Amino acid sequence: MKIIKYPERKEWIDILKRPSLGDELVNENVLEVLNEVRKKGDLAIKHFTQKFDKVDLQNFVVSKAELDEASDLVDSTLKKCIEIARQNIEKFHSSQNSVRKVVETTPGVFCWQKSVAIDTVGLYIPGGTAPLFSTVLMLGVPAKLAGCKRIVLCTPPNKEGKVHPAILYTAKAIGLTEIYKVGGIQSIGAMAFGTETIPKVAKIFGPGNLYVTAAKQMIGMQGVAIDMPAGPSEVAILADKTCNPAFIAADLLSQAEHGPDSQVLLITCEESIIAPVQEQLDLQLQNLPRKDIAIKALENSKAIIVKSISEMLEIVNEYAPEHLIIATDQAMEMAEQVSNAGSVFIGNYSPESAGDYASGTNHALPTAGYAKGYSGVNLDSFMKKISFQQISKYGIFNIGPIIEKMAEAEDLLGHKYAATVRLKSIAND
Amino acid sequence: MKIIKYPERKEWIDILKRPSLGDELVNENVLEVLNEVRKKGDLAIKHFTQKFDKVDLQNFVVSKAELDEASDLVDSTLKKCIEIARQNIEKFHSSQNSVRKVVETTPGVFCWQKSVAIDTVGLYIPGGTAPLFSTVLMLGVPAKLAGCKRIVLCTPPNKEGKVHPAILYTAKAIGLTEIYKVGGIQSIGAMAFGTETIPKVAKIFGPGNLYVTAAKQMIGMQGVAIDMPAGPSEVAILADKTCNPAFIAADLLSQAEHGPDSQVLLITCEESIIAPVQEQLDLQLQNLPRKDIAIKALENSKAIIVKSISEMLEIVNEYAPEHLIIATDQAMEMAEQVSNAGSVFIGNYSPESAGDYASGTNHALPTAGYAKGYSGVNLDSFMKKISFQQISKYGIFNIGPIIEKMAEAEDLLGHKYAATVRLKSIAND
Repeated sequence: MKIIKYPERKEWIDILKRPSLGDELVNENVLEVLNEVRKKGDLAIKHFTQKFDKVDLQNFVVSKAELDEASDLVDSTLKKCIEIARQNIEKFHSSQNSVRKVVETTPGVFCWQKSVAIDTVGLYIPGGTAPLFSTVLMLGVPAKLAGCKRIVLCTPPNKEGKVHPAILYTAKAIGLTEIYKVGGIQSIGAMAFGTETIPKVAKIFGPGNLYVTAAKQMIGMQGVAIDMPAGPSEVAILADKTCNPAFIAADLLSQAEHGPDSQVLLITCEESIIAPVQEQLDLQLQNLPRKDIAIKALENSKAIIVKSISEMLEIVNEYAPEHLIIATDQAMEMAEQVSNAGSVFIGNYSPESAGDYASGTNHALPTAGYAKGYSGVNLDSFMKKISFQQISKYGIFNIGPIIEKMAEAEDLLGHKYAATVRLKSIAND
Repeated sequence: MKIIKYPERKEWIDILKRPSLGDELVNENVLEVLNEVRKKGDLAIKHFTQKFDKVDLQNFVVSKAELDEASDLVDSTLKKCIEIARQNIEKFHSSQNSVRKVVETTPGVFCWQKSVAIDTVGLYIPGGTAPLFSTVLMLGVPAKLAGCKRIVLCTPPNKEGKVHPAILYTAKAIGLTEIYKVGGIQSIGAMAFGTETIPKVAKIFGPGNLYVTAAKQMIGMQGVAIDMPAGPSEVAILADKTCNPAFIAADLLSQAEHGPDSQVLLITCEESIIAPVQEQLDLQLQNLPRKDIAIKALENSKAIIVKSISEMLEIVNEYAPEHLIIATDQAMEMAEQVSNAGSVFIGNYSPESAGDYASGTNHALPTAGYAKGYSGVNLDSFMKKISFQQISKYGIFNIGPIIEKMAEAEDLLGHKYAATVRLKSIAND
């Protein structure tokens, strides 16, 4: 880790800059694949699955037999853990349900807002090195809770044309049964445009590599909503002398092991904690299987020493981390002042990995500073809000003249007349 | 209006298709302007303001003197109407505030979600033929309510370098004072990247033409959130024999006058209402100042006769209109079954123009079928949700083993160890 001491405020932007991802070429390739999928449907899916996943699949629908088989391959302890995590995620996301409130804004004018499930949603679960069955929980549980009628899951096959059993088991356990062995850009295209086999969805969720993210952003320009753009994972830790250096090091490593481009920041106003954290990092690194990845990530990472607790908060709000751990004496008070972050972990016994798996909060969170404008995935992500108004005769009598005056001032006389025709009719009653 | 009788379900998609907008060329031009703004800042803004708005502005900051002057130019009745509309919008959007609920998902594991205002937001108010001061209310009131710290408003100058007084007056009335006379693509670029004068914002709101929309979508790919993509305005009306044909015609025209590409749909299972509505359309068209525009819009519009009330609902949910008026006997019951729409107007005395100006609901709504996956602008649009978790020793004792097991199954041993190191420390307590 690079140690930065008492930086001037004007240096913050440079210090907090994420490594930028060159993407001109990525975009061109992605667009090509998307266009092929749009034009050729299933045929293009087959072609790209062969090209990118190196497997020739006759059928990319996951069968009932495959789902049943997966269940036999997952050990019972893991099944129990998945069930407890599911329950916690369900409890937390249930609490996000909004209650309908009818407001009478003017006598006779009743307005309300209603959350309605998005009919058809698509969940993308990456393949790659780790079988991310936890992401199946994070996306599938709230989609089910929201009441989405059709939930499509796409995940890439391995070279044998199979999907990791933990992914299939988890999907089935939470009631997802429409699963396709399709990954990468081609799966995003399939869910965005629809193919003969895979339905077009209204919103696509889920993490992915540079290509999947670019594909999601592009289809976002073509009528399909997306959860958020996703970049490399990141954590910022605010710590003071009450922190436990071994815990801090473990948390930094749990993030650093994600990938060489993972972002790790330690921010403190107590210089004395840096050395013990470094020591613990060196110690813990030795036993880490993904040591090489973590070392690379740590090379780009920073420990920043600032002057005060308020500066710690300011700099972290400027950075807007995906995950924020607050390991300080006044962790709760500091948490109240966080304005930009995806998910916040308060106190010494709240590791980030708790939120990744089992605390109940969602782990699909905004990275790359997007936390300034975006929420992480939550129950609302699977719903849209529709507004309603019911206006009585007395109501239009009250606001009709206001509509008339304002519409006239905007030179929209048709708008005005829609009020006038009703006011006249009431006058003649 | 084209009358379509009892279409087969398989014909629906074609019937409901919106006119598509060729945009290859648009995108290229937009990208060029955005890149110039990013590279050259204020200099590019000046250049494009001269090029597109035909005015050479030395300074595009709206001064306090200009704001004061605007106030003198707005008549007092309009001021009163704006104030009542403001109050209604504020009442309705205040009701959307969410309450914090702390959930103990597992003993010792406390999770909650908090809505926090987006620090810096940008509002775009189009110029063009109509001075859309109502949009200043629709975006500015909830931004203020949410508590956004910095609210930037951009709106194009006219050829004299001025902004319509109703826009400036409304902005000032609701407490917006950072106003720039910059429009079109260049204003979106300015707010996305920041210039010497205009700050970079985290989210951009507001309607606009094809170019503005394309610019918003593109900067949406570069780290700035946007409210939603916006297309031509549209209304669908569900009517039965209890409707008032004069009201229906007025509502259709109030939409049709927006632009020749506006979308108007009338859906009914009572063929007998078509003729009187047509008659009223012909009658009311005669006095409409924007008659030519409305006639063009009506040419592309459709009256669809279906077999039943349930088919009326199915077809409208498939269309996902921006505005939906329900002028039927069972309007309220039908409203409950609407799953895809931006804003719903229930009963004969709820014209769409009520929501455009004064009922309290927002008029910034998803068009082009986006209502399937997007909400209209609401209080939440100006906030993001941050999740928090506070885990006690007892809490990590309870969920630590679950984290360990799941992390191990995902081959993320660093994640596992972040739980292990805490469990060990507790065991040694």
